[in-house]
Amino acid sequence: MKFAIDAMGGDNAPEAIVEGTIRAAQAFPDLQFVLVGDRDKIESLVGNQKQIEILHTTEKIEGTDAPVQAVRRKKQASMVLAVQEVREKRCVAAISAGNTGALMASGLFGVGRIKGIDRPALAPTLPTIHENKGFLFLDVGANAETKPENLLQYALMGSIYAEKVMHRKNPRIGLLNIGEEPGKGNELTKKAYQLLREAPLNFVGNVESRELLQGPADVIIADGFSGNLVLKSIEGTAMSLMQLLKETLGGSLYTKVLTGLMYGKLKSIKTRMDYSMYGGALLFGLAAPVIKVHGAAKSQAVFAAIKQAKILVEEDVVGTIEESLHDKDHAWLNSKA
Amino acid sequence: MKFAIDAMGGDNAPEAIVEGTIRAAQAFPDLQFVLVGDRDKIESLVGNQKQIEILHTTEKIEGTDAPVQAVRRKKQASMVLAVQEVREKRCVAAISAGNTGALMASGLFGVGRIKGIDRPALAPTLPTIHENKGFLFLDVGANAETKPENLLQYALMGSIYAEKVMHRKNPRIGLLNIGEEPGKGNELTKKAYQLLREAPLNFVGNVESRELLQGPADVIIADGFSGNLVLKSIEGTAMSLMQLLKETLGGSLYTKVLTGLMYGKLKSIKTRMDYSMYGGALLFGLAAPVIKVHGAAKSQAVFAAIKQAKILVEEDVVGTIEESLHDKDHAWLNSKA
Repeated sequence: MKFAIDAMGGDNAPEAIVEGTIRAAQAFPDLQFVLVGDRDKIESLVGNQKQIEILHTTEKIEGTDAPVQAVRRKKQASMVLAVQEVREKRCVAAISAGNTGALMASGLFGVGRIKGIDRPALAPTLPTIHENKGFLFLDVGANAETKPENLLQYALMGSIYAEKVMHRKNPRIGLLNIGEEPGKGNELTKKAYQLLREAPLNFVGNVESRELLQGPADVIIADGFSGNLVLKSIEGTAMSLMQLLKETLGGSLYTKVLTGLMYGKLKSIKTRMDYSMYGGALLFGLAAPVIKVHGAAKSQAVFAAIKQAKILVEEDVVGTIEESLHDKDHAWLNSKA
Repeated sequence: MKFAIDAMGGDNAPEAIVEGTIRAAQAFPDLQFVLVGDRDKIESLVGNQKQIEILHTTEKIEGTDAPVQAVRRKKQASMVLAVQEVREKRCVAAISAGNTGALMASGLFGVGRIKGIDRPALAPTLPTIHENKGFLFLDVGANAETKPENLLQYALMGSIYAEKVMHRKNPRIGLLNIGEEPGKGNELTKKAYQLLREAPLNFVGNVESRELLQGPADVIIADGFSGNLVLKSIEGTAMSLMQLLKETLGGSLYTKVLTGLMYGKLKSIKTRMDYSMYGGALLFGLAAPVIKVHGAAKSQAVFAAIKQAKILVEEDVVGTIEESLHDKDHAWLNSKA
């Protein structure tokens, strides 16, 4: 089983990417890796790791590049070549911490969509304040304009993923909305509510954003605009509160000492809320596994994403989604879409 | 100057409402109040406060009532009568911690809209992690469906409020969006961006939800669906993190003692982030001041909302918005709408 890793994407490339890959190689001796990027910059980092080979290219896509144009113009970019390894069946999954939109475009041009899925969705797993209750959240920004049918497709894909990869039985599907009662929301969520209610899913109804970190569902469905706003609100609030805590408690030597004594406990909170423990965000709906790692990812997050990719491939999540879309139980989906 | 207070709305009514009103009466000896509600339940709480009179009614609107129907059917509800006091000029502002939708409906039926404003917006002030940088956030849920022109109107109203009540010079107006660059977002925010850029406002461009608590603008504009999701995400994340902190640090006697020693500092963080210090949410666009207090409000929040209402009236914010909409400088607004 071989994975293609974009060595040049993200804020901490190539160091964090290579380091995470080496950790994964050590943890899983049966895996193979292709690191795609500038040989001069990554060869010394890789050392003599036998499971890792390098595919050399100097071209790369920047975070500020316009996605579609960049993918069309930079045909030798590390990200594009990583996806190409998957298209040409040399690798089973591609992983990148680079430009999200460009990765989506590389995926759409490179491996295409699952038949029956109109739009892929970006789906990270978020932590909750109580352990082992993290939830899958999609879409967090692959599509700014969304139809009710897209939300239904997200729900189906999410349900399969939650069952196969997160090991949740009969996964609870919640619809992100501005009120819990049926009939609340905008036109999109009102229509999606009806579709989800009629679908053979464990639909638990509307979920308000205030409840998310308490773990009210295994999968939360949202349009990409709303999902992106909420994801970044959670991140920003957590970050700002931690900053405030640090500034306030770090003010005097007295509180500094007290805080120091609680270091282990405070650290455990930070770890619990740390996204990097939860792997990357799958681009749901692409015809092969393509995983986006957070742009600020360190080696731990790269390692977690590779581990996640391994399960995705072993459980054949993409294949299962594709089959489910076309088996008789899901004829309802195609009749709606 | 007399204020109408719905004594029966919110989770802590009537105790917290009456208590907050008494505090305001003591702080501002020139103010008068009408507490609207069940005399049997509030008279003993009021005591012999000379600035407070009671308007008796036993009918009230519940949090679970459907807004428009409730306002139409319950013509003697405490909230409806409070707004009626304003319509009939006996009071200068109405304040309620009850059902938000019903308060909006009471306002629309009771005092109507400012001419030129198509849809009122619900606008709380949110704290930021650094002092004195709170920002006005609108709309947080008055309207689930919004047009670009509505967002432009929110911006104009918010700008006037930020200048007159928050004392910000040349207030910075930001548009909530999923990317900072122009051209990011959905159809609504793309169009709104163009309108805002051309308007005679200090428009600072798109603002991502991750930045909000850092205080990137004095006024943040959003459609009511997105605004509601983001507001509740911030509230929920802060609440969940505080809960996690408490659970983790309260675990052993050792950390309990250490936490106790830092009580003052931790309390100051809670106070800084406490919405109740920032007053209520004005229903922007109604033809007279109607203020919504958080449903979970305690007496401090009621007091803050009354103080805010006092400034609103003294600065004639509603009148200023109305004039601004029709003076020659804002002819551009009417030509767009």
